[in-house]
Amino acid sequence: MDTPTALPATMRQLRSLVTSDGRLQLSLATVPVPTPADHEVLVRVDAAPINPSDLGLLLAMADVGAATSSGPEDDPVVTAPISAPVMAALAARVDQSLPVGNEGAGVVVAAGASPEAQALLGRMVGFVGGETYGQFRAVYSGLCLPLPEGTTAVEGASCFVNPLTALGMVETMRMEGHTGLVHTAAASNLGQMLNRICLADGVPLVNVVRRPDQVALLREQGAVHVVDSSTTTFLDDLTAALEATGATLAFDAIGGGELAGQILGCMEAAIARRATGYSRYGSEVHKQVYVYGGLDRSPTVLRRTFGMAWGMSGWLLTPFLGKLGSEGAARLRQRVVDELTTTFASHYTDEVTLAGALSLDAIRTYARQATGQKYLIRPNA
Amino acid sequence: MDTPTALPATMRQLRSLVTSDGRLQLSLATVPVPTPADHEVLVRVDAAPINPSDLGLLLAMADVGAATSSGPEDDPVVTAPISAPVMAALAARVDQSLPVGNEGAGVVVAAGASPEAQALLGRMVGFVGGETYGQFRAVYSGLCLPLPEGTTAVEGASCFVNPLTALGMVETMRMEGHTGLVHTAAASNLGQMLNRICLADGVPLVNVVRRPDQVALLREQGAVHVVDSSTTTFLDDLTAALEATGATLAFDAIGGGELAGQILGCMEAAIARRATGYSRYGSEVHKQVYVYGGLDRSPTVLRRTFGMAWGMSGWLLTPFLGKLGSEGAARLRQRVVDELTTTFASHYTDEVTLAGALSLDAIRTYARQATGQKYLIRPNA
Repeated sequence: MDTPTALPATMRQLRSLVTSDGRLQLSLATVPVPTPADHEVLVRVDAAPINPSDLGLLLAMADVGAATSSGPEDDPVVTAPISAPVMAALAARVDQSLPVGNEGAGVVVAAGASPEAQALLGRMVGFVGGETYGQFRAVYSGLCLPLPEGTTAVEGASCFVNPLTALGMVETMRMEGHTGLVHTAAASNLGQMLNRICLADGVPLVNVVRRPDQVALLREQGAVHVVDSSTTTFLDDLTAALEATGATLAFDAIGGGELAGQILGCMEAAIARRATGYSRYGSEVHKQVYVYGGLDRSPTVLRRTFGMAWGMSGWLLTPFLGKLGSEGAARLRQRVVDELTTTFASHYTDEVTLAGALSLDAIRTYARQATGQKYLIRPNA
Repeated sequence: MDTPTALPATMRQLRSLVTSDGRLQLSLATVPVPTPADHEVLVRVDAAPINPSDLGLLLAMADVGAATSSGPEDDPVVTAPISAPVMAALAARVDQSLPVGNEGAGVVVAAGASPEAQALLGRMVGFVGGETYGQFRAVYSGLCLPLPEGTTAVEGASCFVNPLTALGMVETMRMEGHTGLVHTAAASNLGQMLNRICLADGVPLVNVVRRPDQVALLREQGAVHVVDSSTTTFLDDLTAALEATGATLAFDAIGGGELAGQILGCMEAAIARRATGYSRYGSEVHKQVYVYGGLDRSPTVLRRTFGMAWGMSGWLLTPFLGKLGSEGAARLRQRVVDELTTTFASHYTDEVTLAGALSLDAIRTYARQATGQKYLIRPNA
């Protein structure tokens, strides 16, 4: 390997541990800086977002409201209780101190011997592959996205999860023969991205939000169909938007409660308005909801008022990319690079150090997954 | 057309009408005996089952507990109230007097000019295509299944819906790469058929029933895995059966309540027992429930304890047969004919005339869809 700059021997890395006595422990470990293998590069992680998809591993569904902290401010140890039913589901990770963080960005400061790895030396890259909440990360070169000259780590930090998820929704729509989309929690960073993609690509999109100010936010960004689930006219508004767009595919970030079922029911009602004659099993048009998040952990409640041609499934980015194939994935990645500071721009409300990410205030804030609030960790700040 | 026997000019036919003032009206209409078109045959319907899949059209989700009857015993008119939310879903059928009945069997007493129709003249056939609750039915010859010499109408009456649904479950399992099945309401006629098919074909099957006597019934029929949802050990028993069978596909006749979600959760637990290491999004094994009935009309409640690789969808026979293609459908139909009185034998607890099907006692009994209770209409008795 090649070492352009002097590297420290050790580094700090955020760790999440579930103990056998039913507690979550978050801390910063001091670990050796890894040496990249032949096909790996060593990235100095300068920015890594806290995405909803990081929280399961990080917080282990612990009761963070009851969390306590000890130790100095720059080396805190946070402890929070975990309920018994949750512990049962976590059996496979008990007593393992796990690194966290799905994606990040930074400069490649060392590289393995392979030409692909060497080609990235000195480049600013975005990358996925876990363990991004630490000062350095050795990662397979194929998991890096080299960013254009002048791109900052902050600009590149979220270039995988949200952009590829938003693009994956539109690709899924095309692959499965739908012609419009519904998206819940639509005012999120991801939702705003999806809105920009759909506007650019001419894809009819129904944005479902939960507050009037989120309606305004999306309308300012050119969104055509925005419906607010907090209003009394929600179901009528949603049905009208579904009739106007013909959308029969929804991506739901919320999961719990009645919303997913309401979307299916309103899709069926919108289809019925255009139908002629009675069909005893409901319409023959397939209506689909993909649940890709769990903002609401309560049970999903489906009042099956939508006939028999319906489906509800979990959706995850990684298996989707596998289904899309390497050529398709490369096409999506290229679009992300080309439009990184426009279509795929992310906004952060809080930048924190590794220790700052473990302050009780920060934990309680990002655990709520409130739309509009987004944390960025700067591990080397 | 060719007429081997003198046919009456008119016949009785059961009708279901939803009136605009929110009532269901069931009656017997007197209508002309149809003349078969070129590709049709005229079947004298001697036996037609009341399947759960008939009840939506027949009873329109009316409150049959509050039904009243008027008219003579052999020509009753039954009326029952329909709630406002149900009426909204029935808008497309209001004020149309609809014939009912998905399948039946009888002798072909007249045939159109086409060779396919002529070939069926005088044959005992099972058939689908609707309007089977009447004395005669003109039906496309391709919807008829000619039955072997000596087959009775009673033996042939249920040769489509249940047999092809049960076979369709096994075919779906194979098409989608699963290697075992779960079936709910497994003591039904359909469930007993599925058990016989799975035993013959070596397909691991988990039978879920709701009463101890149903466990005994299925065990007497050779079922290997039978779990009773009324017991306190249900979830443990189900998980153990899922671990033993590796079943990751369920067909659910019930729809409402927690059962479908419990099956997904127990599938995930069974997979986790065999897994090594922690996966933050749950197992990568796709777990699927197809809802093909609605014995429980209450909402489906999913506690999403089964990771992200899951799906729940409606399943209907007709679109499945379309997906299978004509060659596959012919193969299934041939198996039904070959094993009509063994694998695909149906049992009826009550035989009724058309008028008898409209007695309040009968209506209230078949509306409950109790396992073990099954009605057969004899329209020409």
